[in-house]
Amino acid sequence: MSAAPVKRLAIIGCGLIGSSLVRAARAKGAADAVVVSDPSPEVRARVEALGIADAVFADPAEAARGADLVIIAAPPAAIGLAAMALAPGLEPGAILSDVGSVKGAVGEAMAAAAPPGVAVIPGHPIAGTEQSGPDAGFPSLFENRWTILCPRASDDPAYPAQVERLSAFWRTLGAQVELMDERHHDLVLAVTSHLPHLIAYNIVGTADDLEGVTQGEVMKYSAGGFRDFTRIAASDPVMWRDVFLLNKDAVLEILGRFTEDLHALSRAIRWGEGDKLEALFTRTRAIRRGIVAAGQESPEPNFGRDKKPV
Amino acid sequence: MSAAPVKRLAIIGCGLIGSSLVRAARAKGAADAVVVSDPSPEVRARVEALGIADAVFADPAEAARGADLVIIAAPPAAIGLAAMALAPGLEPGAILSDVGSVKGAVGEAMAAAAPPGVAVIPGHPIAGTEQSGPDAGFPSLFENRWTILCPRASDDPAYPAQVERLSAFWRTLGAQVELMDERHHDLVLAVTSHLPHLIAYNIVGTADDLEGVTQGEVMKYSAGGFRDFTRIAASDPVMWRDVFLLNKDAVLEILGRFTEDLHALSRAIRWGEGDKLEALFTRTRAIRRGIVAAGQESPEPNFGRDKKPV
Repeated sequence: MSAAPVKRLAIIGCGLIGSSLVRAARAKGAADAVVVSDPSPEVRARVEALGIADAVFADPAEAARGADLVIIAAPPAAIGLAAMALAPGLEPGAILSDVGSVKGAVGEAMAAAAPPGVAVIPGHPIAGTEQSGPDAGFPSLFENRWTILCPRASDDPAYPAQVERLSAFWRTLGAQVELMDERHHDLVLAVTSHLPHLIAYNIVGTADDLEGVTQGEVMKYSAGGFRDFTRIAASDPVMWRDVFLLNKDAVLEILGRFTEDLHALSRAIRWGEGDKLEALFTRTRAIRRGIVAAGQESPEPNFGRDKKPV
Repeated sequence: MSAAPVKRLAIIGCGLIGSSLVRAARAKGAADAVVVSDPSPEVRARVEALGIADAVFADPAEAARGADLVIIAAPPAAIGLAAMALAPGLEPGAILSDVGSVKGAVGEAMAAAAPPGVAVIPGHPIAGTEQSGPDAGFPSLFENRWTILCPRASDDPAYPAQVERLSAFWRTLGAQVELMDERHHDLVLAVTSHLPHLIAYNIVGTADDLEGVTQGEVMKYSAGGFRDFTRIAASDPVMWRDVFLLNKDAVLEILGRFTEDLHALSRAIRWGEGDKLEALFTRTRAIRRGIVAAGQESPEPNFGRDKKPV
């Protein structure tokens, strides 16, 4: 009998996250077999050439057939469609999950597509890079990163055990697992991820449109702070389009608060209210120190210097 | 005869940048002697204990006496006051420079304070960390970073040679030197540094004020993008207060454009205009690739991972 938490893993969509899942599951023995489906012939050919999967299918239902864990690794708005396409292959007792950055809308779509007896457990590994495609993945991507699972209301007595099995799978990949209500997930991520991306996209766009300052100058002197934004603003355009459309309410709510605060800050600058500026900047510095103290970041000086993954 | 570009270097203000200048000048032989002044008794005691300077003075005029290069490394709004305080010690033939992030207002203040025969050449090394104080400095801080010098209009026939001597000093520390008009500097830096810091301070403040999401959750899931902002928002509060007050016009101009663009983006989200979002996000990704191609950043995947200086 196998010690792997999963016998047959099907990954639907083989970009950065999907191909990292394939590589990690094999490298860490999290599944006995790993099969892949992707709608793109180029991606399928590339996955074949890389030799990272046991089988590659054009039809997601074929990939899902016989799998006890199916994870959809597609842009958020494509997850519901992928779930419908693969549903004919899903077998009772299987787990259907995903890696989307939005959970409410995506969970609804997967639940609507899944046949009875399949445990739908939306998931979100908080890990990634600015790269895309099957060549960009690597097996250590999820190590020491959080993966949030959002179990849904279920009458199935086997559901809690399925949640535990999916948690064990992610822990085998090196991730730390947290369970969370999907609405709360969408609010927390609107703050910690969606708004930061929106702001970064916006500031890089603003800088690109300026007359009087050349793009060459912006690049040359980007070490002053701008460069950190460009890295975030290089994230996958389609995925992030979907995130903002599918988590619209939470994003607009948080964006509204951000904009109010920014107007107050702008007014303080215009009126020369240095005490207000210094008070805010002192408070935000303390927050950063809390993050460093909580072990979420190394304390070494690094602002404005090239960075490499550890 | 000495080969060092400077005989006696006086650093006024010995925090992160000042103490890095002291360390770098000694480590790289950029000055035969390095003396320091700082208004804080604690900082002076610490510099004495570290043993990084040849002499430490409470009175900046004493430090300036006999120095052929005096660099004020104080928060921007304190630079003019420091220049007035040290002016009695300045000798004809000396260079007076600084490291402030704003150049227009600071250049005016230094020029008003300097006696005849002293070459006032404002400067700005684009380097730093989120740390502060004399213990935070290190000798390689300026290596392969840009230092912008902003020569002023001068009738002194020796002025161009003094600019070249200051450039040689910075190059000896490992910096790349660029000459720029001070007004243009303030506009370029408003885009590449001041606005990014303002936005980062603002977003971290907004997140801290939210009900419904705990600070613990924000920290825990900060790898999704937020963490990069917290690092920037941990920069020295007094220095950044001064930057926004002294570069008010350029910062408010750029902030106004940023806010307009953000409103358009918000509207596109509200109305579900996915094509507009995707078009912007595709454009910003291309800008990032330009920065990587220009050699300003390593292309390795690192978003959401701990970073260390190389």
